[in-house]
Amino acid sequence: MSAAASPQPAKLAVSRRQRSTPYTPRIEALGVSDYSVVNHTVLPKGFGRSVEEDYWHLREHVQLWDVSCQRQVELHGPDAARLAQLMTPRDLRRAKVGQCFYAPVVDQAARMLNDPIILKLADDHFWFSIADSDLLLWAKGLALGYGMNVALDEPDVSPLAVQGPKSDDLMATVFGEQVRDIAFFNYSKLDFQGHSLLVARSGYSKQGGFEIYLDKSSLGLSLWDTLWDAGQAHNVLPGCPNLIERVEGGLLSYGNEMTRANSPLECGLGEYCSFDPTLNYIGKQALLKEQQAGPQRIIRGVLFDGDKTPPCANTWDLHVSGQYAGYISTAIWSPRLKQNVALGMIEQAYWDEGQTLSVQCADGTERNGVVSLLPMT
Amino acid sequence: MSAAASPQPAKLAVSRRQRSTPYTPRIEALGVSDYSVVNHTVLPKGFGRSVEEDYWHLREHVQLWDVSCQRQVELHGPDAARLAQLMTPRDLRRAKVGQCFYAPVVDQAARMLNDPIILKLADDHFWFSIADSDLLLWAKGLALGYGMNVALDEPDVSPLAVQGPKSDDLMATVFGEQVRDIAFFNYSKLDFQGHSLLVARSGYSKQGGFEIYLDKSSLGLSLWDTLWDAGQAHNVLPGCPNLIERVEGGLLSYGNEMTRANSPLECGLGEYCSFDPTLNYIGKQALLKEQQAGPQRIIRGVLFDGDKTPPCANTWDLHVSGQYAGYISTAIWSPRLKQNVALGMIEQAYWDEGQTLSVQCADGTERNGVVSLLPMT
Repeated sequence: MSAAASPQPAKLAVSRRQRSTPYTPRIEALGVSDYSVVNHTVLPKGFGRSVEEDYWHLREHVQLWDVSCQRQVELHGPDAARLAQLMTPRDLRRAKVGQCFYAPVVDQAARMLNDPIILKLADDHFWFSIADSDLLLWAKGLALGYGMNVALDEPDVSPLAVQGPKSDDLMATVFGEQVRDIAFFNYSKLDFQGHSLLVARSGYSKQGGFEIYLDKSSLGLSLWDTLWDAGQAHNVLPGCPNLIERVEGGLLSYGNEMTRANSPLECGLGEYCSFDPTLNYIGKQALLKEQQAGPQRIIRGVLFDGDKTPPCANTWDLHVSGQYAGYISTAIWSPRLKQNVALGMIEQAYWDEGQTLSVQCADGTERNGVVSLLPMT
Repeated sequence: MSAAASPQPAKLAVSRRQRSTPYTPRIEALGVSDYSVVNHTVLPKGFGRSVEEDYWHLREHVQLWDVSCQRQVELHGPDAARLAQLMTPRDLRRAKVGQCFYAPVVDQAARMLNDPIILKLADDHFWFSIADSDLLLWAKGLALGYGMNVALDEPDVSPLAVQGPKSDDLMATVFGEQVRDIAFFNYSKLDFQGHSLLVARSGYSKQGGFEIYLDKSSLGLSLWDTLWDAGQAHNVLPGCPNLIERVEGGLLSYGNEMTRANSPLECGLGEYCSFDPTLNYIGKQALLKEQQAGPQRIIRGVLFDGDKTPPCANTWDLHVSGQYAGYISTAIWSPRLKQNVALGMIEQAYWDEGQTLSVQCADGTERNGVVSLLPMT
């Protein structure tokens, strides 16, 4: 909204409404210094180290992330598959049990409501592992309005991510060598203390790793402790989605890079949108129309110069020769590229790789920037 | 979920996703020290003073609260009135333009999805001023599924609350003497710098005051500054919903006192539920059934002894003679009552006023408590 200067660090007020997780006691014992809030749930965002230190560690070792905030919208019953397909432009018709699918969810105007990972648990059973919006309410509204026979709920599932290049070694110690055979965006059911846990090769980084979909909160501390103890041999640290790493990797964040104002084509998610004439989903007509005309803007990377950037508390305008050229939604200093790196929504006339532009930084400076494809190299 | 000890104060991570407001620059200049997040928007929760200092000030003077997080779900069009009524057990059929209605919103199982204030703007135009859930997605899902002709959106509306016993005097300086004539839970359209603003006599305290529904973000700083300057004569301070005051007053918070697990009858909102046989709304059958059987639990106040309580990061169990008796969801020390005050969901066998019980406090102590009706005196 307004062009505020970057906020002073304010504390997150404690309440039940900002839900804690099965791992919270360990997260707090390990000195969590920063929280975000996603899906009414706390997301640890720092442990007193700098984002740069965490970045290097993530790229070299292994981290445990409490991503319980990735809540599940569970669809179960005779109409579950039909509703799941109605909710996304991604073609799920040949989806197999054991697979995960990154999928835009859009409304009838083809505007983004969320970008979950969909897990197919059975032909009549799906989890939508969601970003930050109450997608359950959309699903419930649709199901009631359309008179569908499907049970919808948020189950007791709290994902724990193991991320970084040593993830396979750590996970193999705890779950056995079979974890190495799990293919990217596939999952297996693996035993933990007599309980079968869904373990997927996935996660919100490009450094490799797994997400463990803990579906029994009472096992949370035991799961954390077991991974933590085994991780001592692999230089494990508590971590969190790393802003430098995700910007360089072009990993989007719903509410940051895109909102309900944007289409999946603007988000660069065209590869996840099917226009097969035999496929039906909400928003298809609007999306097809946009596909034919071509999107007016798209998410790109932007590299820009000057001092270490303050964080984006809101969007910062981009200009080319005085003309509006789009905005940046997330920005941070990259110690590897020795530049500021950003993600933004760039208007069509300016979205070519190498386009120079100026960044209206919240600290009052105007920076020289250049458009980059994603991921940044 | 887990029984964590009260968290160390962690900072709220900055991002566009935790949306700032038209008033944020002033809030930050005034030294906001604590934030909460409601509807993906920052809610100031402290300015470096204690909650107790804020409590006494709120009861004696006047405060400006940035409650932009009370986002509006706008229903507009031929089916707006029909959808609004479908969404709530409260009978809106005789609602008049200019009135506000506190209203539970429930699903088909009569479970709480939100507890907005509904403003009737015209026969075909409503705002649902919402608590912390994406009610827009529920409305959009219903409208699409039922094939309704209604436009649904989140408009550019950022409420600013003026609360405390000197509110009338302050508001009269800025908007004229006519503000004194606005009845409780009614609104008027009043001029501010040539722009017509909706001003309601309402707010999330029992100390009196107004909520200004600013529908033009670019006027935000000017509105704040005008009220701030006029407020100097009335000892104005920046403030926020006060936890002591709202607990004593029995003002509920969605996500704290009640969730999607609860019915409006359990929340003590029976007076806002109509069972008129000619009225139709979602969840009526389930609600009628519960009404006939009587609710199994209800929200009450609890007073308890001992040192100043830590905050509730999650629920704390209540026991009577070793039996589970319910839980507390919010607790704080009252400097006026010189006891800890709390809100909780009490099981039927134990909900009578004066019932003694034990509170399992997060600091490991067991406190002696007593059930109180609401508001607490």
